[in-house]
Order: sequence, then structure tokens, then C-alpha cells
Amino acid sequence: CTDAASYTDSSDDETSPRDKQQKNSKGNGDFCIKNIKQADFGRREIEIAEQEMPALMALRKRAQGEKPLAGAKVVGCTHITAQTAVLMETLSALGAQCRWAACNIYSTQNEVAAALAEGGFSVFAWKGESEDDFWWCIDRCVNVEGWQPNMILDDGGDLTHWIYKKYPNMFKKIKGIVEESVTGVHRLYQLSKAGKLCVPAMNVNDSVTKQKFDNLYCCRESILDGLKRTTDVMFGGKQVVVCGYGEVGKGCCAALKAMGSIVYVTEIDPICALQACMDGFRLVKLNEVIRQVDIVITCTGNKNVVVREYLDRMKNGCIVCNMGHSNTEIDVASLRTPELTWERVRSQVDHVIWPDGKRIVLLAEGRLLNLSCSTVPTFVLSITATTQALALIELYNAPEGRYKQDVYLLPKKMDEYVASLHLPTFDAHLTELSDEQAKYLGLNKNGPFKPNYYRYENTSKTTSAPA
Amino acid sequence: CTDAASYTDSSDDETSPRDKQQKNSKGNGDFCIKNIKQADFGRREIEIAEQEMPALMALRKRAQGEKPLAGAKVVGCTHITAQTAVLMETLSALGAQCRWAACNIYSTQNEVAAALAEGGFSVFAWKGESEDDFWWCIDRCVNVEGWQPNMILDDGGDLTHWIYKKYPNMFKKIKGIVEESVTGVHRLYQLSKAGKLCVPAMNVNDSVTKQKFDNLYCCRESILDGLKRTTDVMFGGKQVVVCGYGEVGKGCCAALKAMGSIVYVTEIDPICALQACMDGFRLVKLNEVIRQVDIVITCTGNKNVVVREYLDRMKNGCIVCNMGHSNTEIDVASLRTPELTWERVRSQVDHVIWPDGKRIVLLAEGRLLNLSCSTVPTFVLSITATTQALALIELYNAPEGRYKQDVYLLPKKMDEYVASLHLPTFDAHLTELSDEQAKYLGLNKNGPFKPNYYRYENTSKTTSAPA
Amino acid sequence: CTDAASYTDSSDDETSPRDKQQKNSKGNGDFCIKNIKQADFGRREIEIAEQEMPALMALRKRAQGEKPLAGAKVVGCTHITAQTAVLMETLSALGAQCRWAACNIYSTQNEVAAALAEGGFSVFAWKGESEDDFWWCIDRCVNVEGWQPNMILDDGGDLTHWIYKKYPNMFKKIKGIVEESVTGVHRLYQLSKAGKLCVPAMNVNDSVTKQKFDNLYCCRESILDGLKRTTDVMFGGKQVVVCGYGEVGKGCCAALKAMGSIVYVTEIDPICALQACMDGFRLVKLNEVIRQVDIVITCTGNKNVVVREYLDRMKNGCIVCNMGHSNTEIDVASLRTPELTWERVRSQVDHVIWPDGKRIVLLAEGRLLNLSCSTVPTFVLSITATTQALALIELYNAPEGRYKQDVYLLPKKMDEYVASLHLPTFDAHLTELSDEQAKYLGLNKNGPFKPNYYRYENTSKTTSAPA
Amino acid sequence: CTDAASYTDSSDDETSPRDKQQKNSKGNGDFCIKNIKQADFGRREIEIAEQEMPALMALRKRAQGEKPLAGAKVVGCTHITAQTAVLMETLSALGAQCRWAACNIYSTQNEVAAALAEGGFSVFAWKGESEDDFWWCIDRCVNVEGWQPNMILDDGGDLTHWIYKKYPNMFKKIKGIVEESVTGVHRLYQLSKAGKLCVPAMNVNDSVTKQKFDNLYCCRESILDGLKRTTDVMFGGKQVVVCGYGEVGKGCCAALKAMGSIVYVTEIDPICALQACMDGFRLVKLNEVIRQVDIVITCTGNKNVVVREYLDRMKNGCIVCNMGHSNTEIDVASLRTPELTWERVRSQVDHVIWPDGKRIVLLAEGRLLNLSCSTVPTFVLSITATTQALALIELYNAPEGRYKQDVYLLPKKMDEYVASLHLPTFDAHLTELSDEQAKYLGLNKNGPFKPNYYRYENTSKTTSAPA
Repeated sequence: CTDAASYTDSSDDETSPRDKQQKNSKGNGDFCIKNIKQADFGRREIEIAEQEMPALMALRKRAQGEKPLAGAKVVGCTHITAQTAVLMETLSALGAQCRWAACNIYSTQNEVAAALAEGGFSVFAWKGESEDDFWWCIDRCVNVEGWQPNMILDDGGDLTHWIYKKYPNMFKKIKGIVEESVTGVHRLYQLSKAGKLCVPAMNVNDSVTKQKFDNLYCCRESILDGLKRTTDVMFGGKQVVVCGYGEVGKGCCAALKAMGSIVYVTEIDPICALQACMDGFRLVKLNEVIRQVDIVITCTGNKNVVVREYLDRMKNGCIVCNMGHSNTEIDVASLRTPELTWERVRSQVDHVIWPDGKRIVLLAEGRLLNLSCSTVPTFVLSITATTQALALIELYNAPEGRYKQDVYLLPKKMDEYVASLHLPTFDAHLTELSDEQAKYLGLNKNGPFKPNYYRYENTSKTTSAPA
Repeated sequence: CTDAASYTDSSDDETSPRDKQQKNSKGNGDFCIKNIKQADFGRREIEIAEQEMPALMALRKRAQGEKPLAGAKVVGCTHITAQTAVLMETLSALGAQCRWAACNIYSTQNEVAAALAEGGFSVFAWKGESEDDFWWCIDRCVNVEGWQPNMILDDGGDLTHWIYKKYPNMFKKIKGIVEESVTGVHRLYQLSKAGKLCVPAMNVNDSVTKQKFDNLYCCRESILDGLKRTTDVMFGGKQVVVCGYGEVGKGCCAALKAMGSIVYVTEIDPICALQACMDGFRLVKLNEVIRQVDIVITCTGNKNVVVREYLDRMKNGCIVCNMGHSNTEIDVASLRTPELTWERVRSQVDHVIWPDGKRIVLLAEGRLLNLSCSTVPTFVLSITATTQALALIELYNAPEGRYKQDVYLLPKKMDEYVASLHLPTFDAHLTELSDEQAKYLGLNKNGPFKPNYYRYENTSKTTSAPA
Repeated sequence: CTDAASYTDSSDDETSPRDKQQKNSKGNGDFCIKNIKQADFGRREIEIAEQEMPALMALRKRAQGEKPLAGAKVVGCTHITAQTAVLMETLSALGAQCRWAACNIYSTQNEVAAALAEGGFSVFAWKGESEDDFWWCIDRCVNVEGWQPNMILDDGGDLTHWIYKKYPNMFKKIKGIVEESVTGVHRLYQLSKAGKLCVPAMNVNDSVTKQKFDNLYCCRESILDGLKRTTDVMFGGKQVVVCGYGEVGKGCCAALKAMGSIVYVTEIDPICALQACMDGFRLVKLNEVIRQVDIVITCTGNKNVVVREYLDRMKNGCIVCNMGHSNTEIDVASLRTPELTWERVRSQVDHVIWPDGKRIVLLAEGRLLNLSCSTVPTFVLSITATTQALALIELYNAPEGRYKQDVYLLPKKMDEYVASLHLPTFDAHLTELSDEQAKYLGLNKNGPFKPNYYRYENTSKTTSAPA
Repeated sequence: CTDAASYTDSSDDETSPRDKQQKNSKGNGDFCIKNIKQADFGRREIEIAEQEMPALMALRKRAQGEKPLAGAKVVGCTHITAQTAVLMETLSALGAQCRWAACNIYSTQNEVAAALAEGGFSVFAWKGESEDDFWWCIDRCVNVEGWQPNMILDDGGDLTHWIYKKYPNMFKKIKGIVEESVTGVHRLYQLSKAGKLCVPAMNVNDSVTKQKFDNLYCCRESILDGLKRTTDVMFGGKQVVVCGYGEVGKGCCAALKAMGSIVYVTEIDPICALQACMDGFRLVKLNEVIRQVDIVITCTGNKNVVVREYLDRMKNGCIVCNMGHSNTEIDVASLRTPELTWERVRSQVDHVIWPDGKRIVLLAEGRLLNLSCSTVPTFVLSITATTQALALIELYNAPEGRYKQDVYLLPKKMDEYVASLHLPTFDAHLTELSDEQAKYLGLNKNGPFKPNYYRYENTSKTTSAPA
């Protein structure tokens, strides 16, 4: 699998960054990274990413005069990549001060961190942190004299958690949290339910635009990419079962069908099941097809969907992988038994061999395939980053009282704005409503274009069904 | 265009049914229809429809013991077709008494009405009613000694309106209204807003299952069917512009792309626009492509989308039609000018001819193409009818207080139930959650499967965007 | 099904055209048609067809000066429709004299025949000829004093057969035969094998362009159209088996898959079978799926593909139809047994009912579905007519000795020319080779573009396989 | 790009294999490879390949008794990979003796060569041969005392060329040549034209099955794979121009359209152009779209299709690659000018930068993308290898006189046999003709199923078009 951080100089010495003297060319040392000398190389990576993130660049331009984040002190904890760097430099251009740590101990691109540090950002992150390093870096972001954050940008909730645990008083000055991950959002809703959420939080994970791109569109491409890079399998004529027909499953099914695979679907929800039927897929139970399929893909968010019993019955050479959020969709643990032999044949590819010689091909040990074995296009990351920036602007500028101590979705109009900023990439031309039409439809010419009542009346009065 | 009522004996005498003596073979005369002698033919039509409405037949079977509508007195006003007859006889099998009128003066299948009357139903409807007949029939349904409705099933709101106007006291005994049409639902929401809705109402138009079938899946097929039956056009290689990329537009685009057309899309909403891009359609403004396209299709719900200026610039032979709900999407009125010649070349097909000889091909005079020029598959009607039946059961059996004087959507679980009743048609096998999985997901094994909070948190806290 | 001749005035008197006085407005009476008064209406039909046959119109323009058919005396026997009229008037514009009869006793559009007669053509044809009329008309075309044909344009071989039988000496002056139908071509090859073909013949049925349009592209659309017009079936989720994966089968499969059907394929040829697999279809034997499918479509050219045994095992409501050339693909005769009841439910639609109540839906009594139940787009007919015109020009102008007494295919370059004349319809822009590129590829800049050796070396040296 | 030989131990010493002592565990030393110790690892690779080459394994089984290659002495020159090893061991199982060299100095999998040598095959090949090594290895295969080949299996024609040049007398005993590559086949036809081909040769490159897989099906997948691995580009919404609509172009277009790209096509041949139109692609000249497209793909076989003028006008970030056979489709040489900067950003990916900062992304320096940047599925190689084996059997066993000194295509029946051997992979079930059907169609029940005359009459009598 291609490694986004593969350009990192692997001959770096082994000294921990925490033990090194850190100083950039201007004498600033308020950061902790692997190697400041990689800054030039990192800068080039950032410049390339800028070309594919036109929405953030447009935000920079439009905000040149007004600086909507003037006074904002943003503490962030995300993957530190070229795309994040474009986001951080955009926030800075909009007026914010930023301090940043990594949300994952492996995902930092060292040369990008170097470029950021050289550019004056207080970055605390390197590829291959220890658990201890991880929390140390986060702490260095928030625990600093004479500077206190008033905005949080989090990915996974660890930063938020740390502040809750160590510096709860800090929340007095914090205007809001922007959280991007499923896990982090889940934590926030739990805090909210428990009455412990003490600032407004924006759930950007569930914005329509992001969801569509992260799930349907991205998976449509990455299922093919992930399978090819790991197994070189030919799709034409292959029999595939896709477990789950949500957005991820829909994307996988559409792509494989288009490549000439014969696709079966399993579902628990009759509405999604009926969609699968109408879209041309045989709806089956897993045990009906498990002996005959060449590829098994889970996209359920559920656990133990592919259990040992099914693994035992798969045919020789069957490929098994997971595209869902949960790492427990395939019961990989059940394969760790003495009678089965594991052979690592490539990075992220294991052959699990039965006593009779049958082997199944397990990808990424059942973890999310498209994170492990394919890359996420910059365009998708651009949508996420733009959404994050707009959410920060919204929370930071919201009039007193607009947002309570609760979890909010991005206002539909801003969701639409993120979409509109990405249309020029496709040379796409939006039609504008005439005054007469806007009046007829009862819409503002600038949106939001889907009446708010549309969806929420769709469900808010729903009651439980009769017993 | 195929006429749903084509089997009607056209040699019927011209006497108005209101002036005829009405009596079925058992001596019952509480109905008013065209010709009771057509009952046998109508019965056969109903039997054929039963074969394609397995969900209602299943409801009949399951309810054999319990009679969930025992005591229900349903007054209905819908299209009177073989499919409606299957619904009425199902309601009857579930314990209800029914009286019925037509919601449209042209749509009654006389032989089906005859079969219903012969079977003991009080039906008041015939093909070709006058305006006066229309209201007379509705009145005969409700204004009857010794019988008062306690449930309303309406399509368009005329029946509801009539009771509001003439017999407001009747609402005291009415447990609820089930309304299927966009127009009728709109009227109900207006009543609700005005505080005048005095019983609970169920909006079955917006149930997920119905929406998907009425829009995406049905339009995917009917756009091809409607165009072929009227124009015999070859789709391959044709340039088409589809205005609007909602569910209807998505269905049209997918079908035409699959048949080898080159499809352009116009949109006002940037989120739908981005979807169009990702789905492989060039997003344009209408004026960019109007000179070059062979077919123009409107699916916007908006008015004056195709105005005279665009019609003037279309090329010779361009086909223009409307798939949207609104009949004003194409500004047909603007074509009624002296310099243009209209030629009716087939049923539902007009050539409008410019002074220079250019002709455009206008279908159904800009009215909804798939209602005018193709047929609606029984399967789609089955979903609607099943939803109506379940909504009646729900409202009739709901414990005191569950429903207020408001408009409700079908509970998600019942929406799922409608879907599940239609899966056997596709020999589709649903997977059941294990106890462990249900617990992990926090779901009841029998649904609803999409957590209620999912969608409504998606928008209910949305506020307006910053200025 | 739409009837191409539906505009014909059905109130015509019943006198046989042979007994009427025939005279057009200029006093000419050398024709025999139904009713000269319909000429104006027929002229409008021809004008509409002209708009969709741009290639013939282009030929007229290009040939204005040269008249490549000057001196040609063409006797023709084809369907007499608006499209044929455009062809005949094109031949006339190119310098030819024409006399014409119908190749089918039902297919003549009387009003078009009238317009042609009014325009001075010697046409002998009407809708509803008797067998005797049929041959009488053909004879009137050729057996005329002072005029002898030197070119034959035939569709089915009846005209050619008549001349062979009655006027063999006529072949001395005939420069060639152009034949369009499979049957007619087959007859010519038989004559050739028997050494009895006494003039060159051009097989236009097998030109690449015509084949692709008649089969793949036309069937892709007409399978959907034919099924919808007869049964209103919803395609989404339906299980369909397509017997045969040649060009016709490929078109049917692609269309149904695109509409959301689940398609199975049967094949006898392993190469086509492998293509079906790679294109994403399960390759099965008919008996494996016959109990579960909703629709059965034959496209084999073979006989007895769907035999009584399979019909017995189909499920209730199964639709059965034939898209192949042979009318014996479905063994319809086997259904004419006393225990089965036939019910004609619509034009071209029979329900065949088993003693247990099971009914199958048989379309067009097993005859070719797309001829019986859908229309052929003018664009497809345009390709055929253009090919015929070019073949006539080629044979008429060929230098002595280029063509022997044999059956020829249209030269590839002319096949390409037909294609190129139809590109403007799609606003398609062909790239031209540079001199350097043409030299590199060893091609003439004007084509033919596929080296002749390419295909014929592909098979001509093939020998039989080892035992 | 994934390197098929990546498992090779890179720490091997630098001694040339020619200078090493070569001896396997049985004391045999008639081979020359990199390192015999890698044999075990190579054996495992071969075993994995065997699982995906069921057709060859089936051949081994069926031939167990008869040994159709008993007495055959095959000298081969192909890529030496696990798949080739399966072929060689199959030939051996069928009775042949084999000596083998590599047809490419880089493509040898050293560990596979080791396994073959250990297994007793006389293999002369290693990864990274010099030009001199290359010919030395070939010579060692043929120039051996007491053994003279009677069959040649070649890929590229170098082996054949060497024997022609050095050992022409050897052809006296040679029964035939089997050649797989375009280049090698071209050379053979030239020899044949020049009257210098002194034995029969079988062109397996142009067998129907191989062509379909190498071109349409393989390219459909590899265009996506090649682009993703090199650029991580998102396909959805991208504008792409594909130059050439032959089999390769058709595969590329279908795949990209399915992934949501907007695809334009250029063509020189009007028939292919019309196909592109009917398949739903805008047919343009390159200059019409060159400014707007995101990706340019050449599939023409022509030269200088994308010239400097077009490269100059592409937009920033445009990706340019070649899927055609010719390496000169993109005029890469024209980019080697001083004002342009080249940056190698990844393996096989160059940024070419204009003075104004515009950069285009050139893949594989314009060489064939799918060979350089994606892998060929074993299934495709299986078809090739099976075809080669059958061709050897055919030529070796052909009765005297069946084949002259000419180039032949694989008999259609054997082509069908190759296809049939691969059907079990898809669990595909072929239908068998009944005696009655076979008679009706005039076919042998065992094939060939497409009558021989079908294609060759299609073109063999074609003459040139009139001037």
C-alpha cells in the first residue's frame, strides 16, 4: 500500500524529538518535530496540495479584508498532513492563532510538520510517537503560559478529553468545539446527554456534503483501488457479496457491478433491502452464497457479521475485507486458533490456511480497507477541511445565544456553501433562481434551497409503531 | 398513450348513472355506477391486480383472526381502479365498512366500480363525471342516514374539504385522516398551521418507501417509456438536458445515460449540483446547451424553467417534456402566440412550428409526462395502497393521546414493514440481527433499524447561517 | 402496439385498387394504389421522415451535379413507408427511374403510396393485398412495354425470384441486385453456390454499420420498449434470463441490467459465454433458473430453446418473448393443447393458463418482439436506406469486371462512408489523419481505416481443430 | 508501481550468474540463474499461481494418459514468471523437454527461475541481464550438444531471429513456431511476405479470447488501477478525453464513465466514431476539449496524437498517459526542451513544468501505462499460456501438409476450447445443443459454433470503393 508519508527521510537519527533542540531559521523554538531540515521538501508537498484544495484558497481570498477569525486561538488535534497544513495556513490567513498536535501516532508527515514549524506554527507531532509522547504533545499545545485557546478543532475527541480531564476551567473561555470523527461525535453526544457538555459543539462529521464524499463517492473508487493494490484481482465475472447496503455498501456495489462483478447483498433493514433489489442486486442471507463467492466485503457498522462459521465455509482463495467503520465486522479473533496457519504475503495481506490447504485472503486484518490500503483523494480531504474552517468561523462569530451547550450540525446553508466552493473544480455552472421563481418556491435566492421543514417533519413527529 | 380505462365498454348508453336505477344481483342499490353488467369483467381485472399486490394479500391473511379494523367506517375518495379495489376489499377483510367516491372525474374504471358494487360496496363513481356529479358522489358517501364515518382516506383533499365545509360536526367521531397526495398534504399542513386541523392526519405521501418508488425508481423507467411511446426517439447518442437533480432528475439521468444519451444537468442547489458532477454529468446553465440538445426534460417543481426565450433557441426537432410535479415548468402559455402553428401529430404530441419552419415536439402540453404518456406499474401502486392500509390501522388503533391534532409521518417502523411485505416479490431474504448484534447496535431486532435520532438531529438544531 | 400505418383512413371503400381507375392530378395513371386523395397527408409524412434522414438528403445535395444514377432503371420491392419514399425520391434525384412494389402485403402506408404516385412514381402497392395481388403488383413493375430494369433493389428476394422465374432474359440487361434481408441474402448465396447467379449481387444486410444498428443498438432500446408497451412490467429487481449472448442478447442484457434487473445468460458458444461472465452475468443452463425468473427472452436464432417442459416449470406471471430472428425459438406450438387455456388480454399479449391457474404471459405469439410490439427508429432505417442507395451507385458504376456473378459485401470504405454521413446527427467531429500519421499507419487518409487484412487473416487460414 | 519481482532478495551478491557455479540439489548444472537457494520461495509462488491457472492444470490432468507432446523439444523465450513456470511444467507434464531464456532483461523473477532449475529445467535467465547476457542466454538454450529443438515458443521474435541468424539449419527439424507478441507476429508476417518463413507459425496474439482479455476486459480495469496507483486521482466528475475508440479505448471509456467521469472521444474511423456516439460519448477533435480536460489518454496505435501544441494548451494539473501499443502516441520528445522543467515526483510519475508554473502530470514517460504501473491479473496470463500450450500441441501433432510455411491463427475451435477451460473459474455452465438443434443450425455439437464463412465472407470479397 502506498504510504502517504513515504517521502520521509528514513535515515533520520533515532534521537527522540523531545530530546532535541528545536529551532527554526528565525530562532523560534515553540514546537517539537522530527527534523526542521525537511521544511523545504514539506513546503513543496503543501504547495501541491494547495492546487487541489481550491475551496480553502478561495476562502483565503474572500476573507482577505475581514479576517473572520481575528482573535481566535485555535488548538487543534488532527492528522498532520499536507492537507491539514493548507487548512492551518488558511485559518491563520483568516486571523487565527493555531497550536497543533497529531491525533494519531503514525500519521504525521514529518516534512510537513517541519514546514509548518519553519512557517511559525507551534506544531507538536512526529511519525512514530509513543503513547506517552502523544499526550505530551497534546499537553504542550494547551498548557502554555500566556496563551489560552478559545476554539477547539478535534478529530477523535482526545484533545477535548484531555482538556476536560486536566484543564476544565479552560472551557470558560472556549467558544466551541468542532469535531470531525464518528468517535469524537459519539463522545460529544454522550457528554451532552449526561449534561456535561459545557460549550457548543459542531458535528461536522454528519454534514451532507462530507457524508456523501466520505461514503458513497469515496468508497465507490476506493473499494476497487484497495482490492487491486493488495490482490491484483480481476473484477470481471467475480462473485462478490457485500454485507450492508448503506451509503458505503451502495458505493461498493455500484463500482463492482460496473466492473463486471456479480454482486449479492445482505441487509437487515427492509427499506435498504428493497433499494438493493430495485438497484439490481440479489438480496440474500450470507449463508446462501458464502460457499460460492470470490470476495466478501463488510459495510455494516455491525460486529461479527462474518464469523468463523462462514470463514470455514468460504472457498479456496476467497478474499475477505472490511469497508465499514467497525473493526469487528469480521471476527478476525476467531481465526487465531492453532489449526490455522497465517502467512503474511504482502503488506496488509494475510493468507489464512486451513488444515486441508484451503486459504482465504484476509486484507488489513479486518480493519478498514480504504484507510489501510488505498489513499484518500485530496478532493475529499478538501471538503472536510473546508467544512471544518466554516464551522470554526460559524461558532466563533455566532451571536450570544444562537448556540447552547449542545451538539449541532452545520447549518444547511453552510453545507451548501462548502459544496458551492467545490463546483469550480468541475467547471460546473450553477443556475440562479429568478426573483419570481424564488417567490414561487418560497426560497431565498441564496439558499438554503431545501426547505428546513422538509426533512425534520419527515421524522420528528414519528412515534413508535403499534405492538 | 395507453389508457388505464381502455377496457370500458364505449357503447354504453348516454343516460347519466344518476338517472338510472341501480341494483346489484342481491338487490342492493346503495351505489351509483355506470353499468352493473360489467361486474364480471371488472372482477377479472381485480383478480389480475391481486396477483401483483402480494403485500395486501399478505395483510389479509395475517389479519384473518384479529380484524384490526373491526368497527372502522372508512369513507374514501381516490382513483377507482383495480388496484384500489384490492385495497378496499382488503380493508373490508380487516373488518372495515367502506363507502367510496372518485377523486378524479376521468379516472374511474367503470367495470371495476361495477364489480365493487356487485360485491356490496357503496361506490359512487363513473368515468366522465361532471363537476356537479363529482361533488354529488362525494356527498352520497358521507351524507347517509344511520352511518357515520370514523376514518377518512383521501387523495387530493377534496373529501376532507367537503366534510369541513358541509359536515364539520362529523369530525367528532373521526379518528383520523390518511392523505396520499402532495396537494392534500399541503392543505393539511396549512390547516394545522392555522390551528384548524381537528383530528390527527397521516401524511403517507412522504413515507420513505413511497417516495423512493414514486420518484427515483418509477421515473427511471417511465422517462424512457413516456418518450418512446410518444416519439419513438432513439436514445443512443442523443444530447439531453435534465433540469433539476432531485430524485426525479436522478432517475431520468441514470436511465438516459444507461441508454447512451449524453446528459447535461442544471441545478440551483449546490449540494445536488455536486452530486450531479460526481455522478458524471456536466453541470450547465440552460442557455449554454439549449441550442445543441435534442431533448429537454424538466424535473424541478419550479415554474418557468423553460421559457419562450429558450424555446425560441432550440434546434429543429427538439423534444420538450416535463417530469416534475408542477405543470408550469415549461412556459407553454408563451407558445400560444399567433406566429406559431400548433399541429397535433399524435395523442399527447404537438408540433409547435416557427415561421422559419423549425418545429419543436411538445409532449403532454407540458403536463407530467409519466402520468399522461406511460402507465404506473402495479407494484408502485401496491406500495402506496399498503401504506394507506397500515396508516388506517395505526390511526384507528392508536391509544388515546398518541396522536394529537397534527400531521404525522408514518412511523419509520411501519415504513419498514411496508418494505418488508414487498421483499418476497423479489425472492429477497432479509438478514436478522443476532441478540448480541442488536445489543451492540442498540437496536430492537424487529426494527426500526435506523435510529430515530439519526435524521432528526441532522437538521432540527440547524439554525440560519451567519449573514 | 403502435401501428406505423395508423394514420390511414379506415373509412376507405372496399373496392379493390385493381378495379379502380387510377389517375393522379397530372393525368398519369401508371400506378395502382388505394386512394390518390391521401397524397397530401402522405407528403407531410415524407417531409417529417426527411428531417430524420439527413444522410440521404446529403447524398441528394452532393450528387446534384453528377447524377451517378443517370440512366439507371431501378425496380424495387420493399416495405412502402415514408422512409422508403425518401429513398426513392433520392434515387430519382440521383438520376434513376423507379418502379416499385411492396415486399409485404400489410406494411404499405397507403397515404405514402399516394404521395409517391402523385409525384410521378409508378407504385403498385396497398395495405392488405391478397397473395394474388402481391404477385400482380410485382409483375406490373417489371412487365411493362418499352421499359426494362437494369438494377434490382429487393427485400426478401421475391422480386428477384419472380424475374428468375418469369423473365430470365431480363438479367442480360441487369447490372446488379441489391438485397437487404437475411432471407433474400440466403437465397442469393444458394443461387451462387448452385452456379445460377447470373449478375453481381450486393449483400447490404451484413454491412458493419447496419448490423450494429439493427442488432446491438436497436435491441438495447427496443427490448425495454416492447416489454413496457405490452405488459407495463417494472424492470427493477426483476429476474430475467436471456438465452443467447450474440449482438442481440448483448443489447438486451445491457439494457435490462441498467434498469435494475438481475440478468442470467445461457449460451452454447464458450467464447460468448466467457464474454457474458466478464460483463457481469451469471452463465447458467435454462433449467437452473427457469423456476425463479420473471422474464424469459430468447435471442439465439436457434429453434426449440424454450420448450414445453420449461414453460411448464415457469412461475405464475412469467413473461416469455422472443427477440431472435427465428420464430421457433419458443415452442409455441406445444402450448396449443387442450388442457391449457389461452386468453388474449391485449393486442400481442396472450395469457396461457394452466389447469392449476398458473398463467404465463406470451408476447407476440413468440414472433420477433421488436417488430411486433415496438417501432423501429427512423435513424436505423436511415442507415439501411443510405446503404442501399450507395450499393446501387456502386454496382451501377463499377467498371466492367470489378464484380463477377457472385454475392458481395459493401466495400468497407462505403460502409465507413455511410457511418460518416450519419455523424452530423450527433454533432460528432471526426479527426483527420495527418500525412505523417497516415504514412506511419500505412493508411489512406480517406480510409478504409481498418486494414483489409485485419479481419480476413483472422479466420481465412483457420483450419479444423485436431480430433 | 507494484513490482512483480519485488520479493527478490536485493541483498544478493553482485557476482554475475555467468561466473557462478550453478548446481541444483540433484547435482544438475545445465542452467544459469541468480541463486538456487531461492528455489523454495519460488516454488511457493508457483503453487499460488497454479491456483489461478485452472485451465493449465486441467490440461495436465486430461493429458495424463496420452502425452500429446511426447518427443517435443521446446525452446522458449518469454518473461520468466510464476505463470510461465506453470506453463513450462505443464508442457513437461504433457511430454515435452524444455529449454528457456528470458525475453526481457528485467522481467525475470529470480526465485521462480531458481525453482525451475531446482526442478530440472534448463533455464538461463536472471533479473538485470546485460544486452550481452541476453543473447548469451538465448544461445545457451539452443546451442547445446546432443539436443536440438523441434518447437519454438517465442515472445517478441528474438529467439526466432537468433536461430535464423546463427543456426538456420536448425529449422529443418523444427515443426513450428508459436509467437505471442504483436512485434513478433509482425516480424513473422514480414518473413512470410518475403518468402523467407521456412516453417509454419502460429500467431496466438490474435486469437479472439486473448484479444478480448488483453484489450477490452483487461484495460477496463487497468486504466483505473494505473491512474490510481500513480496519481490517487478521484475519477468522479473529472473530464477525460480518450483518443481512439478501438477495443482498448472502449474499455477505458466504459470504466471511466462508470466511475463518474465525463468522457470525450476522438476517432479517425467513422464506424468506431458512430459506435462512440451510440455508447454515449461526445465525439470531438482533440483541440476542442484540450483546454478543459483533466485527463488525456491515448489508445490509438498511432503516433504523435498528443503533440506539443496540445501539451502547451492543457490546463494545470492535467494528467497525460498512454494505453496504446505505440510509445510514440504522446510526443514526449517534444517536452525535452530547456524551458520546461521535469520533476520526478514518484516512480513513473513526472511533473513537467512550464515557465508560468503550469504543470502537467506525465505517466510512465508516455509508455504503455498498464504494463508500467499496474499488474496484469493471473487470469489474463492464464488465457495466454493456455493458448500457447494448445498452439504447440496443434502444430506438433498436425498431419503433414495441414500447415504450410505461413502464419496461421489458432483454429476457431481451439480458441473456443481455451475459453471453455476458463469457464469453471466463474462457475459458468454452458448449454449443449440438442442433436435436433445442431442439425437445424448446421453446426457440430462440439463447435466451432460460429460458422467459418461468417467473418471471412464479411470481408474477403470486399473491393476498393469507387473513386
